[in-house]
Amino acid sequence: MPIARGYAATDASSPLTPFTFERREPNDDDVVIDIKFAGICHSDIHTVRNEWKNAVYPIVPGHEIAGIVKAVGSKVTKFKVGDRVGVGCFVDSCVGCATRDLDNEHYLPGLVQTYNDVDTLNGNAPTHGGYSDSIVVKEGYVLSIPDNLPLDAAAPLLCAGITLYSPLHRWQAGPGKKVAIVGMGGLGHMGVKIGAAMGADVTVLSQSLSKKDDGLKLGAKDYYATSDAETFTKLAGTFDLIICTVSAEIDWNAYLGLLKPKGSMVVVGAPENPIPVHAFSLIFGAKELSGSMIGSIKETQEMLDFCGEKGIVSEIETINISQVNEAYERVLKSDVRYRFVIDMASLDA
Amino acid sequence: MPIARGYAATDASSPLTPFTFERREPNDDDVVIDIKFAGICHSDIHTVRNEWKNAVYPIVPGHEIAGIVKAVGSKVTKFKVGDRVGVGCFVDSCVGCATRDLDNEHYLPGLVQTYNDVDTLNGNAPTHGGYSDSIVVKEGYVLSIPDNLPLDAAAPLLCAGITLYSPLHRWQAGPGKKVAIVGMGGLGHMGVKIGAAMGADVTVLSQSLSKKDDGLKLGAKDYYATSDAETFTKLAGTFDLIICTVSAEIDWNAYLGLLKPKGSMVVVGAPENPIPVHAFSLIFGAKELSGSMIGSIKETQEMLDFCGEKGIVSEIETINISQVNEAYERVLKSDVRYRFVIDMASLDA
Repeated sequence: MPIARGYAATDASSPLTPFTFERREPNDDDVVIDIKFAGICHSDIHTVRNEWKNAVYPIVPGHEIAGIVKAVGSKVTKFKVGDRVGVGCFVDSCVGCATRDLDNEHYLPGLVQTYNDVDTLNGNAPTHGGYSDSIVVKEGYVLSIPDNLPLDAAAPLLCAGITLYSPLHRWQAGPGKKVAIVGMGGLGHMGVKIGAAMGADVTVLSQSLSKKDDGLKLGAKDYYATSDAETFTKLAGTFDLIICTVSAEIDWNAYLGLLKPKGSMVVVGAPENPIPVHAFSLIFGAKELSGSMIGSIKETQEMLDFCGEKGIVSEIETINISQVNEAYERVLKSDVRYRFVIDMASLDA
Repeated sequence: MPIARGYAATDASSPLTPFTFERREPNDDDVVIDIKFAGICHSDIHTVRNEWKNAVYPIVPGHEIAGIVKAVGSKVTKFKVGDRVGVGCFVDSCVGCATRDLDNEHYLPGLVQTYNDVDTLNGNAPTHGGYSDSIVVKEGYVLSIPDNLPLDAAAPLLCAGITLYSPLHRWQAGPGKKVAIVGMGGLGHMGVKIGAAMGADVTVLSQSLSKKDDGLKLGAKDYYATSDAETFTKLAGTFDLIICTVSAEIDWNAYLGLLKPKGSMVVVGAPENPIPVHAFSLIFGAKELSGSMIGSIKETQEMLDFCGEKGIVSEIETINISQVNEAYERVLKSDVRYRFVIDMASLDA
């Protein structure tokens, strides 16, 4: 079996440390990838700290993976050695189903997550993610990264990018549509870039105005502080679509008040506790409160192609893998503009 | 000014009693209607008992009105004396706006409700509803009732009918779609009939199985008791659309679990208190929780035409107006199959 080197969490409270492990022997339809960069997603932290109560240690996190194809199985047709590729949040889907649901695979049982899951193609061994130097992935779950996008800044597109692209696309952000992005972090800043590139009129709603200059530079037309109660009266009935990227327990009813009739608010950040929702917040104005989670492989490729066409990547700060624990602390303090990306060459440092 | 006779509530706790009042002098674009029947809607009770804290007495309730045109103003073109017509929940809209929003008028400020509102066309006198022998309504807010529908059983279409038609239509109930109607009352039974007529596969989810025979007879394919916890495991991931007509404080998260990925649950019954919603109930499966409230005049006419084509009316129990207070008590006990309609001829009894 191929040997990989990476960093792993061994329990909920210790720092991540160097870790060597086996990848599966490549199958005919597998792609072997030299990982060059891996983004740090907040859900990596939730998982390794067992905040979602599903951790099985050791865990090699990372589902924003960008790299170069190192080898391909004999039945692989879409990729060849040297191709620039990505891997996102899952590496198999519809396991045990007769057919693969190309549109909803990520919402169905039978999904295999990139890490902290069970690899049915490898005797139910644990899956391990992108904080490592290589990965073996079934062809159908490998994405092409457009040539004009740098691999480091493209890595976060695999989770943060598709998380925002999917609802922006589903709810038809585009010319004439007023879109609000709640939260100006790793997810939110991608929403601003992608929404603006789709032609929508994008407003950022952020706790404070501290990142206003960035927001406007990335494509927002307006930027308001949600700590200012006047924002909610001034913007009442304004938006066709609000995408909420924050996981704080905010009052969704107040945000629903910012929608036009038949407008939609889509939650992509998950507060830990339930939020009380008034029926009247939905009924008056026939408003929608929805959720969204990453996207199918088909949609993720569509997003990457769109980002290639528009030249969109994430705003990143590149780090060495030995800095990962420090980076986690900074993520928790929102002290990053706007995504950490690990340079995997640093494994050799 | 024309004199009307009807029944009114004079305060929050007394029974409705006979009441004589003035209608406005008809304008050039007004239609004068002899009211033949008026449905009793649960919101009539909420309003006259001041449960929504907005009652201004005396109140003549009633917004499910069916009658015959008695006179028309000189500029009226769509109606003539003798036409079969209806009036629903509002009698003007977009007041003070430059143009009328034909699709969202019922969700915008500037709506004038049929009763317990202010008639800007009549010196801000109170509007009075359908528990009376006549009404004067601007042509643009009068609906045509198809010839093949009896006026008594058609009256509830003006509120109950459009309340269900609008979400069924917006979320494209039709062949191949699995639709659940939660609650088998005045609203729910219309949802079964209209959903089935649209070609959808309709399931009723009701507290008990006591109305199962009716549900199946009206067009439902299946009927389940929500008091049986097994219903929620058996039907997990089943529906494209769930329309919730009950105002009880049920656990929306459990119902969201019955949706397919990207399915929609639409609330048309309003629980008094907020319902705690888990973000994960929305995010896993990209589900929608929405609201809906009646429909525009354009959509209401479309609904009436659809009901005419399909021969759909409400299941009713006709009463004399002197029985209205007793009927209210029976509505509160769900002791009606499925809508009370007041025969206005009984005013002369």
